[in-house]
Amino acid sequence: MTEFKIEINRTPEKKQKPAFDNLEFGKNFTDHMFEMDYTAGRGWHDPRIVPYQPLSLDPAAMIFHYGQSVFEGLKAYLTIDKEVLLFRPEKNMERLNKSNSRLCIPEIDEELALYALKELISLDRDWIPNVEGTSLYIRPFVISTEPYLGVAPSKRYKFIIILSPVGAYYKEGINPVKIAVQNEYVRAVKGGTGTAKTGGNYAASLKAQELASLTGYSQVLWLDGKENKYIEEVGSMNIFFKINGEVVTPELNGSILEGITRNSVLELLKYWDIPVAERRISIEEIYQAHADGQLEEAFGTGTAAVISPIGEFFWDNKKIEISGGITGELSKKIYDTLTGIQKGTAPDPFGWSVKVEKKEAAGIK
Amino acid sequence: MTEFKIEINRTPEKKQKPAFDNLEFGKNFTDHMFEMDYTAGRGWHDPRIVPYQPLSLDPAAMIFHYGQSVFEGLKAYLTIDKEVLLFRPEKNMERLNKSNSRLCIPEIDEELALYALKELISLDRDWIPNVEGTSLYIRPFVISTEPYLGVAPSKRYKFIIILSPVGAYYKEGINPVKIAVQNEYVRAVKGGTGTAKTGGNYAASLKAQELASLTGYSQVLWLDGKENKYIEEVGSMNIFFKINGEVVTPELNGSILEGITRNSVLELLKYWDIPVAERRISIEEIYQAHADGQLEEAFGTGTAAVISPIGEFFWDNKKIEISGGITGELSKKIYDTLTGIQKGTAPDPFGWSVKVEKKEAAGIK
Ligand SMILES: Cc1ncc(COP(=O)(O)O)c(C=O)c1O
Ligand SMILES: Cc1ncc(COP(=O)(O)O)c(C=O)c1O
Repeated sequence: MTEFKIEINRTPEKKQKPAFDNLEFGKNFTDHMFEMDYTAGRGWHDPRIVPYQPLSLDPAAMIFHYGQSVFEGLKAYLTIDKEVLLFRPEKNMERLNKSNSRLCIPEIDEELALYALKELISLDRDWIPNVEGTSLYIRPFVISTEPYLGVAPSKRYKFIIILSPVGAYYKEGINPVKIAVQNEYVRAVKGGTGTAKTGGNYAASLKAQELASLTGYSQVLWLDGKENKYIEEVGSMNIFFKINGEVVTPELNGSILEGITRNSVLELLKYWDIPVAERRISIEEIYQAHADGQLEEAFGTGTAAVISPIGEFFWDNKKIEISGGITGELSKKIYDTLTGIQKGTAPDPFGWSVKVEKKEAAGIK
Repeated sequence: MTEFKIEINRTPEKKQKPAFDNLEFGKNFTDHMFEMDYTAGRGWHDPRIVPYQPLSLDPAAMIFHYGQSVFEGLKAYLTIDKEVLLFRPEKNMERLNKSNSRLCIPEIDEELALYALKELISLDRDWIPNVEGTSLYIRPFVISTEPYLGVAPSKRYKFIIILSPVGAYYKEGINPVKIAVQNEYVRAVKGGTGTAKTGGNYAASLKAQELASLTGYSQVLWLDGKENKYIEEVGSMNIFFKINGEVVTPELNGSILEGITRNSVLELLKYWDIPVAERRISIEEIYQAHADGQLEEAFGTGTAAVISPIGEFFWDNKKIEISGGITGELSKKIYDTLTGIQKGTAPDPFGWSVKVEKKEAAGIK
């Protein structure tokens, strides 16, 4: 691995840690953060680890006005042997740059980003929770910082990584959720920013999510923006269906985010010789499959929940129940396998786990 | 007018002003800014004017991750009698709240916002440039500030107003621009956030703008996201065409921003008894009208340029020239009338101009 120079400025005072057995998602942050600046003409510069601290930005900084930003999300797990494992982190850095490209943000050296992430985790290692189901959520993100009100790509950026210890996604084990199909609001459309992890997509999703919650549904099923017919994603997850023995998921059509969990599930199914297809799937087809008694399972995939089984859909004034409202067999098997690989308790035939070596934190005394 | 209590904290040291005869757009900011906070359970609180200064935000503040934000843009003009005029500012505050609603941001008291804006302008009155064609650009905006990584509406916000003296949009008089029609990238789609002034729309537009610039075009003509056929907007402006004596503009279809200049142009045309229609317009129709010798003028409308005449379109490998590449008669007449009303040199039959009274800055000593 290439050697990178990252300056480290340790915090003079460590924070009090929250109780690891009762962590809320994304509310607690560790002692340090990684930061690197971009200046046009100079490129990315001054990679450094500093105490977790507020950002001071001009009120005209472009991030506050034109939303030019991207982010990633991945997790570090503590194994029973006290090793630290990352799950396919190079995929996140690759996607970060794909998002950057769509948003006109200058590319980041993926190896440097990965190295920085490992250094930061090493330094804040005692923040990785050790309770069953917990992990350290990692949030790399880029924001545009030039103080300028013209609509144009920013000439200055910050790349930052923050870390947050998070609790088990399912407090009482893996449980199916109820999903409302969204007909009015659209998450993304071909030619838009749906394939990138950028703030605007999530801002756009809040309204539909709010409406779904009001009617007792926990997530939104997004249909395509052109015909409002084809299934795209569920909440902030990709979606899979098991229909008559075959597993199907919407193909990457230019508006869906290419999830790393999605990719891993596809690999796993092929490895298991379970028939699987990426293709266009209409909501009508799903309702028809249910009517025909062929809709066996449905689940969302994403870093936060890994696998999120779906127990009910609501669309066009009709409710359908899936797998009798309980977690399907295949959903459970995928969940156990993936979380097993992530935590180092199951074999990893794909080489997906990446260890954070203590010695890699070379600059840290 | 209702009385509002706004605390004023004056800057101890006024900044050096830039030369008013050579101002760039959105690069210089005045001595003060308005700020107000929202906290769930408490509502909007602590409206105040403070010295222009950096914002200090937690790196987990939601604006950096999920783009929940809205903004507005309007201008103040100095008349030859040294009066300060705003152009239909209540419309901007109304639209701010429409944007807020789409983005799940709590509503702001429009009267308070307008009062705050006037107070701020009064205080920084000597920043309004007096050179021909210049003005004071006003940028109200709302950002989500809760430090939380869950995808949900923020529980904390800041509403801020900053001011920027800006130069004449056309340095050498009103001049037609060349426009590339965009087939691949989409600005917005029905069900998305196109009708709201939110950062994500502008982030999404950068890529196409970059491509247009590379081929020598100054702006992008956006087509609809569903069929890539119907004309929506041009750059960050609404668009009008004069075809065989009739003026047409795309109807408000759920993905177009409802521009205040657009609305004013429609009113003006009706007042002048010029036939005008809001309807669906395909790019094919425009090319056909050109082929038939009936496409007389085309222009964009927006706060920044007021009227931006279009001299050329490029689409499907075909260039067409409009009005012989020079500014059309009607475009020029609308431009002169609107800027005349804005600067107080022309009659204002609609009551669009709003004076900023010196005495309104009651709290200012
Ligand atoms: C919109 C969206 N779709 C899908 C996913 C799933 O991606 P991954 O499996 O990489 O976490 C995410 C986020 O994580 C997402 O934000
Ligand atoms: C996308 C977009 N369309 C149109 C307009 C024109 O609106 P207005 O005339 O209110 O300035 C603007 C901005 O000002 C805009 O950002």
